[in-house]
Amino acid sequence: MSINATEFTDIDPGERILMGPGPSNVPARVLQAMSAPCIGHLDPYFLSIMDETQRLLRFLFQTENDLTIPVSGTGSSGMETCFINLVEPGEEVVVCINGVFGTRMADIVNRVGGELIEIHGQWGRAIDPEAVRKAVKGRSPKIVAVVHAETSTGVCQPLRDIANIAREAGALFLVDMVTSLGGMEISVDNMGIDAAYSGTQKCISCPPGLAPISFSSAAMKALNTRKTPVPSWYLDMSMVKSYWGADRKYHHTAPINMIYALREALRIIAEEGLKERFARHLLNHRALVAGLEAMGLSMLVPETERLPMLNAVCIPEGVDDVKVRRALLNDFGIEIGGGLGDLQGKIWRVGLMGHSSTRKNVLLFLTALETVLKAEGIKVSPGALEAVSAVYS
Amino acid sequence: MSINATEFTDIDPGERILMGPGPSNVPARVLQAMSAPCIGHLDPYFLSIMDETQRLLRFLFQTENDLTIPVSGTGSSGMETCFINLVEPGEEVVVCINGVFGTRMADIVNRVGGELIEIHGQWGRAIDPEAVRKAVKGRSPKIVAVVHAETSTGVCQPLRDIANIAREAGALFLVDMVTSLGGMEISVDNMGIDAAYSGTQKCISCPPGLAPISFSSAAMKALNTRKTPVPSWYLDMSMVKSYWGADRKYHHTAPINMIYALREALRIIAEEGLKERFARHLLNHRALVAGLEAMGLSMLVPETERLPMLNAVCIPEGVDDVKVRRALLNDFGIEIGGGLGDLQGKIWRVGLMGHSSTRKNVLLFLTALETVLKAEGIKVSPGALEAVSAVYS
Repeated sequence: MSINATEFTDIDPGERILMGPGPSNVPARVLQAMSAPCIGHLDPYFLSIMDETQRLLRFLFQTENDLTIPVSGTGSSGMETCFINLVEPGEEVVVCINGVFGTRMADIVNRVGGELIEIHGQWGRAIDPEAVRKAVKGRSPKIVAVVHAETSTGVCQPLRDIANIAREAGALFLVDMVTSLGGMEISVDNMGIDAAYSGTQKCISCPPGLAPISFSSAAMKALNTRKTPVPSWYLDMSMVKSYWGADRKYHHTAPINMIYALREALRIIAEEGLKERFARHLLNHRALVAGLEAMGLSMLVPETERLPMLNAVCIPEGVDDVKVRRALLNDFGIEIGGGLGDLQGKIWRVGLMGHSSTRKNVLLFLTALETVLKAEGIKVSPGALEAVSAVYS
Repeated sequence: MSINATEFTDIDPGERILMGPGPSNVPARVLQAMSAPCIGHLDPYFLSIMDETQRLLRFLFQTENDLTIPVSGTGSSGMETCFINLVEPGEEVVVCINGVFGTRMADIVNRVGGELIEIHGQWGRAIDPEAVRKAVKGRSPKIVAVVHAETSTGVCQPLRDIANIAREAGALFLVDMVTSLGGMEISVDNMGIDAAYSGTQKCISCPPGLAPISFSSAAMKALNTRKTPVPSWYLDMSMVKSYWGADRKYHHTAPINMIYALREALRIIAEEGLKERFARHLLNHRALVAGLEAMGLSMLVPETERLPMLNAVCIPEGVDDVKVRRALLNDFGIEIGGGLGDLQGKIWRVGLMGHSSTRKNVLLFLTALETVLKAEGIKVSPGALEAVSAVYS
């Protein structure tokens, strides 16, 4: 078997404005940090970078949790890490499902032999805490799990009530923060969260490939007192913690350059400040929605339940979903996402995440969308620009 | 909780010559490719990069196997992927153990509930195929598993005899190629290998973070006819194959920039040619050994069982392992590895992998080691340079 090496050209992805459900645009500084020379994973310099990455992650999660690390896989590996380390066969796990990622949680719980208790909510709406209260009544679940920011629908799940219900039931509270971390207020310690995971390619604006996680002392106790081994060697936090801890006990080789990138992305967040960053996400979201509504488009999610970084826009009757997205990509270099599952063809998912959450992108996207819709013969109400300006003024 | 962003400086790992058990030095072209703009994981351009990466990986593995992809995790996730997709609870798995990585295989088999049949060999020697023949006699194991290149000892395991034994027993033949792939002859198709995995940071000279794997049609049949679900969602190849296949069905977000890097590293291999690359690894290995032996040092592994890319050197009596390695790192910027497990303090592991396998590195390392040993008051025989030159001439 041979191959002709000259068939392959230099990597050149061109320029994209990433306004889909992730990845978001990665700042040049992060790409530069990522391309620093690769060194040994036990080199003293790299160990110092690991320490700094942990400190910065604790700041972002707002936690003192010792086990706060980037798992060596993408966001979904973070989800898997949380469940497989904390659930043993036969244990009850309450999972709130109102989109793709709650569904994925349930799938994982089944694979590890957990006793799954599903709470189903409408896709596009938050889960009612009363439904959780009912579900845990008379039970003692090991875990109550929710998705903070459902990337498939744009819904924000309020956490405090469910955190209280979980605590009263003696359960660990597990939260998916893949899309919310870095884009809206989160405090793992103050919100009573025991296990949280995220991805790097959303509001952190680092390339995909790592899954930041954090385990509370209660979660660590559950891990340390397991009766059965963690079903995965690769994601077994009882071993991985010794590599990231003071022991530095070899487990697997860390993805060195990805960690350079994450550290730089977190440093940029620290420079901006959390409060300022969250305010920026909210402002650009409000401007986008004002513009879309002025154009006559409507949002899937009621105003009080919307995420600031992921906007689910209802596709108007008679509009060809794929054709519009293709025109945005080919003519304007703008990527947005389509709907998943039952929402396929019904919504667009417009991300304003991390480095992509800018006034410039809001304006460009609205103008581009208007242009594409008009070219398709769709009537668009005037006044988007004025509505957007009013938000920024 | 606040943090002071000015405490963190720019990433600057300095310059290291990576001659340990991995990572190896990464060519500038690979680092440049990795720092190209991150784009969407379903962007048409990225899909073409996925296709090209698969073609290049098939070339490297010398296989036509459809499922030939980089798993989104480091090398160990490749090991886990092979076992958890192909083993069901109660099935017999024969694992050959003569180092750390065979031990890790056994650990994973236990976690997935496989019936483990261990074949133990001496650390520093290859496994005798007769031991495998005995172990499978009267059994019908699902898998026979070996480590081709035991990174913990520097031993090369001949594959053909064990492949035949596995085939006769009706078992799938599973091979760890983490350290061998890209540095010595391998043909997944011609050698009768059903499942193989590797890492990117050894002889491929790409940063760590991906695990190339390949499954034969027999392995795919075993996967497709499972009676129980794969215990991991993240590494479930029955789903991941649809993302890498023509369907492009969303599973998880691929680590975009890492895949840019891998594609470039594979392209460099294609440019060099496999035959030329393997000859280079062998030549530099022979030169290194000639120099070490001229200095009066000895190798752990008998000549016929040595790997070309990982050299286990016995630490002479009275020499302080850690002190020597620290001096090599601090005074010469050279990283080599120490021993693992029972071999800790007894061997050094000197890698000549991928981009690090050069005549220049062989000479520098020998000179640096001689300098450090002499400074420690150790007697070193003269003539290393002559011995090395004789190999290259």
